[in-house]
Amino acid sequence: MTMTELTPMNGEGTTLETAATRYVEGSGIRFVYRQLGPSTGTPLILLQHFSGNIDAWDPAVVNALAADRPVIAFDNAGVGRSTGQTPDNVAAMARDAVAFIGLLGLSEVDLLGFSLGGWVAQQIAAEHGALVRKLILVGTAPQNGEEHLLAVLQAAFSKTDAPDARLPLFFTSSAASQAAGLAFLTRARACTKDRDTDSGSDVTNPQAKALIAWCATPDRERAILQAITQPALVVSGGNDTMLPADNAYAMFKGLSNAQLALYPDSGHGALFQYHDLFVGQVRTFLDA
Amino acid sequence: MTMTELTPMNGEGTTLETAATRYVEGSGIRFVYRQLGPSTGTPLILLQHFSGNIDAWDPAVVNALAADRPVIAFDNAGVGRSTGQTPDNVAAMARDAVAFIGLLGLSEVDLLGFSLGGWVAQQIAAEHGALVRKLILVGTAPQNGEEHLLAVLQAAFSKTDAPDARLPLFFTSSAASQAAGLAFLTRARACTKDRDTDSGSDVTNPQAKALIAWCATPDRERAILQAITQPALVVSGGNDTMLPADNAYAMFKGLSNAQLALYPDSGHGALFQYHDLFVGQVRTFLDA
Repeated sequence: MTMTELTPMNGEGTTLETAATRYVEGSGIRFVYRQLGPSTGTPLILLQHFSGNIDAWDPAVVNALAADRPVIAFDNAGVGRSTGQTPDNVAAMARDAVAFIGLLGLSEVDLLGFSLGGWVAQQIAAEHGALVRKLILVGTAPQNGEEHLLAVLQAAFSKTDAPDARLPLFFTSSAASQAAGLAFLTRARACTKDRDTDSGSDVTNPQAKALIAWCATPDRERAILQAITQPALVVSGGNDTMLPADNAYAMFKGLSNAQLALYPDSGHGALFQYHDLFVGQVRTFLDA
Repeated sequence: MTMTELTPMNGEGTTLETAATRYVEGSGIRFVYRQLGPSTGTPLILLQHFSGNIDAWDPAVVNALAADRPVIAFDNAGVGRSTGQTPDNVAAMARDAVAFIGLLGLSEVDLLGFSLGGWVAQQIAAEHGALVRKLILVGTAPQNGEEHLLAVLQAAFSKTDAPDARLPLFFTSSAASQAAGLAFLTRARACTKDRDTDSGSDVTNPQAKALIAWCATPDRERAILQAITQPALVVSGGNDTMLPADNAYAMFKGLSNAQLALYPDSGHGALFQYHDLFVGQVRTFLDA
């Protein structure tokens, strides 16, 4: 395990695959992260999906976003090489992420939350109006949203011929989407040195509990969406089997200041399949 | 009335406000148009909304799109200074528009259809697969879509204090949207020389009949959407009162290869309110 101590904010010229893995410690948790991009500008904090670690992000997305802003990928409490326990609820994950942001000394950030990370992003944005400038919600759902997580996960893991569960989970069955999936896997596996630790059941069990609870929690008042006043960009694949695009449309309608972008022939990993389009839309949104 | 005859395709350096008004004649109709942008590249044909003429387009949209492609704004049969009768159905409007494109000698075009123009664009794309490369559908609806056209039009025209019916019709009541509306009107009124002829009831009566019929026509099979195989970009304001954004989401789902973009705090004129964002998305879509 190669980790450098916290250094002044500057990840210029580095990539997700080559940046030093850093850590910052507080509240009894040592958070592991990588920082890319220039030292100035509003930092973009990446909030990762179920079971994912720092190296589960797509370098094509992360490195392109870091071309003109600080970008920070991290392992939340208990995930990857971060210490502490993975909580079994989104509110505690949000609390841990806010602690991490505070330990970095950041007073204003942008959030990019993917799937489970999108729930954490919503929770943080709703509770910490001053901390979050803008948020990007990808492949995610509002509280009490429609989910088919267990059924789809089970089907994916039963397909023993798939070289990686993310091919059926993140991409459609079309030749174009599967080809994009293989390209994504090649990019996401490029980092072989200092690679992050895969998640075990001590991560996935509480995370699964958290995401099922989030979708099962009634929210007729749309309390979280209504508490979010920051500009939001909502993105989804049109054929997401785990969290259908209806969720994205519902978030667009429930948020007071949201843009919606839906992509064709794409599933949960739409941001990886259309990485150029996605990065362009995120940059336009964050720079507006 | 200043009009030049058809000249070789080149509108480079001109703007919607300053380009010469040209005409081309055939099938008993003299079509009036303006052509902007370079002479090479797939031409983008603009299909206009209910009652609108060439000068009802937003120069901020049209001129920016013409920076790197030929863009053609025209008056369909009976509208503005084009001769012929305005048809009372979308199919005939599509037939006339295809005749115009043919008279220009174009074998492949992109279409940008706004509102009623979006229905004409869908009809053309469905029937002329080889002619249409890509299409952009803005503030429009699928056949049998949800419309509140008469009610909203009536309310808008009863507001005698509005300096232009497009302020309540195209923009929301928020200060930001109304300010964008005033800026749009200033841009759209900048052309004072050789300005197009406003529409009378000989245009609006048959057009109103056409658009009401389009929305009243049952289409459980989604025959038109399913016949469209070209890539499509569907755009709508999130608060469109005449043609709600549900229509855009329904088109996204019904089309085989569509992207969806919805904008916050915006109505029917979302493309004018967010002209920079819209132009950027259209260019990315057309260049992909």
